[in-house]
Amino acid sequence: MQRAEAEALDRADLLAPLKAAFAPIRGLYCDGHSLGPPTRVALARIARTAEEDWATRRVGAWNDGADGPWITLPQRTGAKIARLIGAAPDDVVVADSVSVNLFKLAGALAKPGRAVAVVEGEFPTDSYVAESLARLTGAPFVRLGADDPMSGRGAAVVFRSLVDYRSARVVDMARYEQEARAAGVAVVWDLSHATGLLDLDLPRAGARFAVGCGYKYLNGGPGAPAFLYCRGDAASALATPIAGWFGHVAPFDFAAAHQPAPGARRFLAGTPPVLSLAALDASLDLFDGVAMPAVEAKARRLAEVFLAAASALDIDVVSPRAGRRGGHVALRHPQGYQIIRALIDRGVVGDFRAPDLLRFGFSPLFLSHVDAFDAGAALVDVVTRGAFRDAHFGERAAVT
Amino acid sequence: MQRAEAEALDRADLLAPLKAAFAPIRGLYCDGHSLGPPTRVALARIARTAEEDWATRRVGAWNDGADGPWITLPQRTGAKIARLIGAAPDDVVVADSVSVNLFKLAGALAKPGRAVAVVEGEFPTDSYVAESLARLTGAPFVRLGADDPMSGRGAAVVFRSLVDYRSARVVDMARYEQEARAAGVAVVWDLSHATGLLDLDLPRAGARFAVGCGYKYLNGGPGAPAFLYCRGDAASALATPIAGWFGHVAPFDFAAAHQPAPGARRFLAGTPPVLSLAALDASLDLFDGVAMPAVEAKARRLAEVFLAAASALDIDVVSPRAGRRGGHVALRHPQGYQIIRALIDRGVVGDFRAPDLLRFGFSPLFLSHVDAFDAGAALVDVVTRGAFRDAHFGERAAVT
Repeated sequence: MQRAEAEALDRADLLAPLKAAFAPIRGLYCDGHSLGPPTRVALARIARTAEEDWATRRVGAWNDGADGPWITLPQRTGAKIARLIGAAPDDVVVADSVSVNLFKLAGALAKPGRAVAVVEGEFPTDSYVAESLARLTGAPFVRLGADDPMSGRGAAVVFRSLVDYRSARVVDMARYEQEARAAGVAVVWDLSHATGLLDLDLPRAGARFAVGCGYKYLNGGPGAPAFLYCRGDAASALATPIAGWFGHVAPFDFAAAHQPAPGARRFLAGTPPVLSLAALDASLDLFDGVAMPAVEAKARRLAEVFLAAASALDIDVVSPRAGRRGGHVALRHPQGYQIIRALIDRGVVGDFRAPDLLRFGFSPLFLSHVDAFDAGAALVDVVTRGAFRDAHFGERAAVT
Repeated sequence: MQRAEAEALDRADLLAPLKAAFAPIRGLYCDGHSLGPPTRVALARIARTAEEDWATRRVGAWNDGADGPWITLPQRTGAKIARLIGAAPDDVVVADSVSVNLFKLAGALAKPGRAVAVVEGEFPTDSYVAESLARLTGAPFVRLGADDPMSGRGAAVVFRSLVDYRSARVVDMARYEQEARAAGVAVVWDLSHATGLLDLDLPRAGARFAVGCGYKYLNGGPGAPAFLYCRGDAASALATPIAGWFGHVAPFDFAAAHQPAPGARRFLAGTPPVLSLAALDASLDLFDGVAMPAVEAKARRLAEVFLAAASALDIDVVSPRAGRRGGHVALRHPQGYQIIRALIDRGVVGDFRAPDLLRFGFSPLFLSHVDAFDAGAALVDVVTRGAFRDAHFGERAAVT
């Protein structure tokens, strides 16, 4: 593949103008699957929430913020995410972290004597949460193989990521839901690597419960609050295990007994971190009028351009070549950490997952086909010239 | 009392210069017990975290942020709060909300067959969390009267606020701990209305577990993350019920099994909301070199000045006249809501709690004795002239 072909793809790319919505992005940032960069609108919103709302309207902003009342932000931001996953506006709220939201849904879905399950190889926090919930309630904890049958394992609930955080492999959601339903298991999907990237319709796939993070493809800011989806018809039968005042039907009645709010809102707990929530809320406006099938298709094409540009290399590609794929490509190399460091030093930011995984993310809203080509070419250059041998050999970075 | 006496108190006030650290505060803001206003340093920090860290250093800021690595913020900010409550630096972390932190500590302290308890009249979220945890684990849920004996109720753990959110009454912590110890009950203190206002030494009072919010007297910003205190010698025996990757001893090993971090850090769960956390971290620097006994004493004097200025009124004072008191004064009036609205319209911001409570907060770091005098005089004027009868009679604000 030649660079000119990537240039031609860029000229035909209807999503290309979206890059201008982002604050200037230095270098080739192929790490949007870890932390999406800020849009200009999000930066302006943070300043307004801090300097106009907090400093000037102060406590009054709960009812009358410059961008609407703070008090309804968990629902208003949730409704924006709902559109991206095919859900009804009231079926999604933004709150807490992925870990806490997994706990809340699984706690609500747990059944006496039945197991809390997780699929082998899940993102660690999902596995830790399942195990600690099981310990707390005295339920068994089971790990299911990715292709194990669900029946006969006694699970009431299972956590499953739609996109594998290492390989970017995508699970067939409708089929998994069907199997789970037959086995009487409720599935809580972790959409962290899927939302804002894949074209999703959870209700059509039969999915009733999901969580996801706000800081990857939603570009909501570092540690942005997570979301929780609970299909409307399922919510009324469920009680959150962490009942907090924001999930009360009327928080400011200060009633002694908890009366859950309707729909997904019952899963709110404490007061939300408004500055972080406002950043996410503003970031989501980037998706207004954007067709998710086009986003998923461009991500796929960017990864293909990257792999074509890197095809001269004899390197193990962990991500699936065929079928649906998340937004990143994973490669395997025994000196993966050094290679990633050498690339970062020349402005190409990917990340590393122990022991030997290199990940390159292709967020379609701010990367071009030429960017993907250049990232592939840089990788070839670093590996073939052995340039990474000169790179830092220090401590592994805590988050890369 | 004359205004000149308040002026004299201001001239002798060693804390008076701290007001200059805040962004300009319009009017008389007597609502710092609900939402503290921003310091200049906090506003600058928010901008730096957004525009330098997120936009420029991006994912690299986890290890190398402009104000230190994001990854250690939960501990670094916790250590600043530790100083304010007499705790060792490693015994406090900042994470999640008060509701979620109450749940984590109580879940770790719960014992099979023994009750989760809450004291009557607690802030609603504390009561909701206790009840929902009991439901999840099948434990009994009990409400204890404020002066009921703890023995014989079968409780493993009880939530108790140090400062009552309505009356500002302060519980005798050491005595309550002593009673609880004799009854075999673990106390989880809610310090939301105490931290940053009262002179506290939790270890000396025998307290081992506490939570508190960051957005009142710590001025950490709207919905700032909460903190969790677990005394060092108690942590190693406890397992958090919401085990997340940030509480793992080595999160970036991505190990399948959860191995808790040492100390209070094991109670971290998911990725923290960095923008909100950074604002709290910066806000806490205001307390550098400030003696907490002086802060508590000034709060007390401000409230006395307010009550003296309002002494012409025949109005029910709910807060205790003698003994320790939190930072606000609560009054009772059947038309409390209208009075608060009328005061807000003339720039004196207090708040209202249904059905008839008026609260006026006297944050000693940004209010002067003259401010407190003027707030009392404004209240007298509004009530005696019946000016509040002309005030809004619309919907009650969601948060006032």
